[in-house]
Amino acid sequence: MIPNEYRQCVVASRPEKSVTLDNFRLETVSMPELAEGEVLVRTDSVMVNPPAVVALNRGVAQQPPVPVGSVMWGQGVGAVVASKNESYSVGDRVVGPLGWAEYCVIGGEQLPNLRHNPLPAEIPATLALHVLGASGPTAYLGLIELGQPKLGDTVLVSAAAGTVGSLVCQLALAAGCTVVGIMGSDEKGEWLSSMGVHHVINYKREDIRARIAELCPKGVDVYFDNVGGETLEAALSNLAMHARVVLCGATSQYSDSGPFKGPSNYFDLVHNEATMRGFHIFHYMDRVPAVAGRLVPLLMAGKLQYKEDVLEGIEQAPNALLRVMKGENFGTQLVKLAAS
Amino acid sequence: MIPNEYRQCVVASRPEKSVTLDNFRLETVSMPELAEGEVLVRTDSVMVNPPAVVALNRGVAQQPPVPVGSVMWGQGVGAVVASKNESYSVGDRVVGPLGWAEYCVIGGEQLPNLRHNPLPAEIPATLALHVLGASGPTAYLGLIELGQPKLGDTVLVSAAAGTVGSLVCQLALAAGCTVVGIMGSDEKGEWLSSMGVHHVINYKREDIRARIAELCPKGVDVYFDNVGGETLEAALSNLAMHARVVLCGATSQYSDSGPFKGPSNYFDLVHNEATMRGFHIFHYMDRVPAVAGRLVPLLMAGKLQYKEDVLEGIEQAPNALLRVMKGENFGTQLVKLAAS
Repeated sequence: MIPNEYRQCVVASRPEKSVTLDNFRLETVSMPELAEGEVLVRTDSVMVNPPAVVALNRGVAQQPPVPVGSVMWGQGVGAVVASKNESYSVGDRVVGPLGWAEYCVIGGEQLPNLRHNPLPAEIPATLALHVLGASGPTAYLGLIELGQPKLGDTVLVSAAAGTVGSLVCQLALAAGCTVVGIMGSDEKGEWLSSMGVHHVINYKREDIRARIAELCPKGVDVYFDNVGGETLEAALSNLAMHARVVLCGATSQYSDSGPFKGPSNYFDLVHNEATMRGFHIFHYMDRVPAVAGRLVPLLMAGKLQYKEDVLEGIEQAPNALLRVMKGENFGTQLVKLAAS
Repeated sequence: MIPNEYRQCVVASRPEKSVTLDNFRLETVSMPELAEGEVLVRTDSVMVNPPAVVALNRGVAQQPPVPVGSVMWGQGVGAVVASKNESYSVGDRVVGPLGWAEYCVIGGEQLPNLRHNPLPAEIPATLALHVLGASGPTAYLGLIELGQPKLGDTVLVSAAAGTVGSLVCQLALAAGCTVVGIMGSDEKGEWLSSMGVHHVINYKREDIRARIAELCPKGVDVYFDNVGGETLEAALSNLAMHARVVLCGATSQYSDSGPFKGPSNYFDLVHNEATMRGFHIFHYMDRVPAVAGRLVPLLMAGKLQYKEDVLEGIEQAPNALLRVMKGENFGTQLVKLAAS
């Protein structure tokens, strides 16, 4: 049963510094008529993550920032409820840039971004947003292919309890490395320890640089950076010879629309013959299905644990983003809009 | 005939910001007696280059800064004039950390750093300080092995008319690349053009970032960085996908003893799947002889041109360093102390 209207969250204003609730506005809109080729999707869950801030102030994946007045960007899972496109039938489970809205019409240029959810029914559909979506392959390609951890290496991970970070930690453990995770609460630290992470650093109450030096006496062989800023500098100060730094995110720098803080000790790369490698899953989309497939057995064997932190209702989406930016979420932040 | 005394240049004070003549003091000292195992070398020429500033305020090659009151650090070539060491005979041509002094006693821990000058007599001895010393292998290993230029790539080089930079440009040309050099005078630009460098940028009167964009419309595949600072940022803003940035020097950052300026756009590495690799020849000393040997045929074929900028007399050494730091030298800065 398709309702006559639905709710969506649009960008009300561009953040001046940190994102605030005022940057969004909840609207109720009429259900549109589908044009030829279009698909109507009911969004079951939308994922809210740091790139959302980038979508607001800089634009993600080579797109311009989300225009003021438009539905906020976000990846979601849902089901097709009406279709004038022969590739999609009512009832199909899909994943794509559904945005912060209870329903979403997808057509034209956006169609290639809507994919059939590849997961079998026994795996929760939301995993197509993280472990078996982009996050798992991000962790795998960034850590394993670019970071090239060797058995016995010390791997340091920032935002280690985050969606990507927690997967990086577990893949590094599976590859036989000593793993040190940096996170922002003792509860998250306990979760990481329970997975087998050897050492954890709570950046909110510990001196990151001193603790890395203490916990990694032979230096850091692979640093997987999700945050940038002072944490990146602390890691660069503690590299082992021939270390690999994989740049995946810079959460600490996303809020401000000004230039990022460049690491003032980047020349430690010279002192250690080290490599800093930028990486974005956007450039590897053709490899995502195969890499996600490689993760399934690890997931089934319990070697890739994950957490979801679920808020309910579209009106919670802005609050979800604020929680993410403050590190208050514990697990992949989802907003559940409908029973799937 | 060994004189009774000789002149040397010692560190008088540590530079507060830029190096000044006041940071050095010329002294006349008595010729010492040699102890068992020691060698007395008459310095013919000493090389003065940007790492000298690092030796003053931070220390090079994992050594502490040169102590105030000690002879200033510098690589030189000379001849053994007295020896109580069976590995060295009077008349042997040598190369090593002779310092800013007309004579130098080498013994103890310093002995492994004194090497017989490997060059045949028909090659000027001073080339053991640059093209066939550390600079040539720095250019070769940094560009060819770490930068991995492919035929048709665009290679950007800063301090392109410098000792290392000019060799990097020529090796990149020999490897079939389009070469863009950044230097600080039109005279230096003309020299680079005469070697075949395709485009030059005079950073003293041109907008580096705009000119790189204009001259490298497909982006920079390899950037060989000798200077850091704004030039590094301008290069990072113009990378091609999968670009390689080789960090070799950061001359623009050496004078100030405070932290370096980190590149605020380091995240362009992420946007371009690019790599930034630190590199110091100090870590490759065992490979220097073989790599230098590989450069000899190129040198003989005229494919590795070089310039020497020679001042005469030990009293000129501090001035030589000031010239180097201002980019006023044209060619490898040498101070000639004696007829070889």
